[in-house]
Amino acid sequence: MPGKLYNRLAIVGFGLIGSSLARIAREKGVVGEIVAVDSSEKHRERIAALGLADRVTGDIAEGVAGADLVVFAVPVLAMGEAMAAAAPALAPGATVTDVGSVKGSVAEALKASAPDHVFVIPGHPIAGTEHSGPEAGFAELFDGRWVILTPDEGREDAPYVEATAKLATFWRACRAQVEQMDLKHHDLVLAITSHLPHLIAYNIVGTASDLEGVTEGEVMKYSAGGFRDFTRIAASDPTMWRDIFVANKEAVLEVLGRFTEDLQALSRHIRWGEADKLHDLFTKTRAIRRGVIALGQESAEPNFGRDRGKH
Amino acid sequence: MPGKLYNRLAIVGFGLIGSSLARIAREKGVVGEIVAVDSSEKHRERIAALGLADRVTGDIAEGVAGADLVVFAVPVLAMGEAMAAAAPALAPGATVTDVGSVKGSVAEALKASAPDHVFVIPGHPIAGTEHSGPEAGFAELFDGRWVILTPDEGREDAPYVEATAKLATFWRACRAQVEQMDLKHHDLVLAITSHLPHLIAYNIVGTASDLEGVTEGEVMKYSAGGFRDFTRIAASDPTMWRDIFVANKEAVLEVLGRFTEDLQALSRHIRWGEADKLHDLFTKTRAIRRGVIALGQESAEPNFGRDRGKH
Repeated sequence: MPGKLYNRLAIVGFGLIGSSLARIAREKGVVGEIVAVDSSEKHRERIAALGLADRVTGDIAEGVAGADLVVFAVPVLAMGEAMAAAAPALAPGATVTDVGSVKGSVAEALKASAPDHVFVIPGHPIAGTEHSGPEAGFAELFDGRWVILTPDEGREDAPYVEATAKLATFWRACRAQVEQMDLKHHDLVLAITSHLPHLIAYNIVGTASDLEGVTEGEVMKYSAGGFRDFTRIAASDPTMWRDIFVANKEAVLEVLGRFTEDLQALSRHIRWGEADKLHDLFTKTRAIRRGVIALGQESAEPNFGRDRGKH
Repeated sequence: MPGKLYNRLAIVGFGLIGSSLARIAREKGVVGEIVAVDSSEKHRERIAALGLADRVTGDIAEGVAGADLVVFAVPVLAMGEAMAAAAPALAPGATVTDVGSVKGSVAEALKASAPDHVFVIPGHPIAGTEHSGPEAGFAELFDGRWVILTPDEGREDAPYVEATAKLATFWRACRAQVEQMDLKHHDLVLAITSHLPHLIAYNIVGTASDLEGVTEGEVMKYSAGGFRDFTRIAASDPTMWRDIFVANKEAVLEVLGRFTEDLQALSRHIRWGEADKLHDLFTKTRAIRRGVIALGQESAEPNFGRDRGKH
């Protein structure tokens, strides 16, 4: 076990991700104290009531002062402003990271106002649920999930490299796996593995709710044939996701273009009754799921185990 | 409790759905004996080894002879041929139904060779998992799920109406809820709640596996951000789904057209940074999930409860 890695962890934005990180960091004993910063009074009350942090404040500068690890866990378009508010109070030598789902524009926003005396190492834990807020967090959220760090490329000064290694150790202590990647590649990988799936899910739920000839009640009632899976993703936090699509516009439009092309080809196969081509695709896609399960990123149980209580 | 509703139930096609129906029908004691008919020798061996039926055969005519309830549970494009093989052996007064996901073309295929002395009442239980085969079935599969029956419209002769009511009683005894609908409406409702979701899922998994710049390994590794949900649906039985898209072409292409239009509008909102319009959609879609959960068609647990073991 690594013991205490940081004396004071300040988490700015104490929602699902921020509060889960606080829970596991405390459970693992890898930080001295935890300061929660949240702009919502309701959140602050819940954080205090649940005893999730040693100190709770609504003031960013006050919250980050004296912290040697600062984690920004606010929606991606709010990162720049949060960093600007924190900057004057950041301690020399502090490590500053984030958990945003987009890295290119967020790294830029963080660096815009970061003082030279801190180490900015953007990051992204690929973990979450469709719920939000400090009560939705849980210590096991990062178990076996991947955290992608995107440190400055080509920057090889020892203190920065050491700060990056220490941040990776911290995430591993929180039971995550850690990988490094360049910003642009991260944004493309996440566009296909996370952003496009959300866009598609939001879209199909929207289409279904507006369809003439089928009522919303029917859509809900008969959703067990597949639709209900999409409603989970389409119940994710609207502000978080609005920001992601604005911040990762280029990569999202690129993969969306590919998706649409493929969908048109599939549509043509259906129109012309090209059954073999459908069967080929439907066979190929099975292998991907086996890979996802083999890599420990998914439950092997049928229906995600949601029927587990039943049998 | 209804007691014995039928003396002999013959299930033609003993996969996930067929074998689940056999399990629950036996558990509830609503049929005298169960005959399993399956064209796969491997399946027949498993059915016998697991003791899922009183008799197992590969011969359809032999299997349905003397049965007062015959359920066809083969892929939808195989229904017509199965019915043709069964027809000469069907007992007078028998109820003949199916579990196909498309009703218009299946009803036509069943009726094409059905003798006048049986009651053809097409049906569709909206239940399943991504697994297939007799071992994948379980008695609780239909718990609280909907079964849609599509009896002949306008046919009001007492024996047919009674046969329909009895079939509904049978499904309710198997713990399902029952609704009646006309064929065309069924096919439109299922196109949006089941067929389009599958098409989209197959498509996105295909797109992801062919994307330049992102490896299949990366797609699997970082799938917890949303993509993994789609891989479940895209792991469904290829033959079953090929048949559905061929058999429900018109309704699928209609809802696919609507989906694509909506996706283009969403794409434009992203391109022009129309953040408010994204937020509006992402807020509206949350309500649909709440409805699905309230109607008992979905787990209320975060991540479908797939993390349940963890916390």
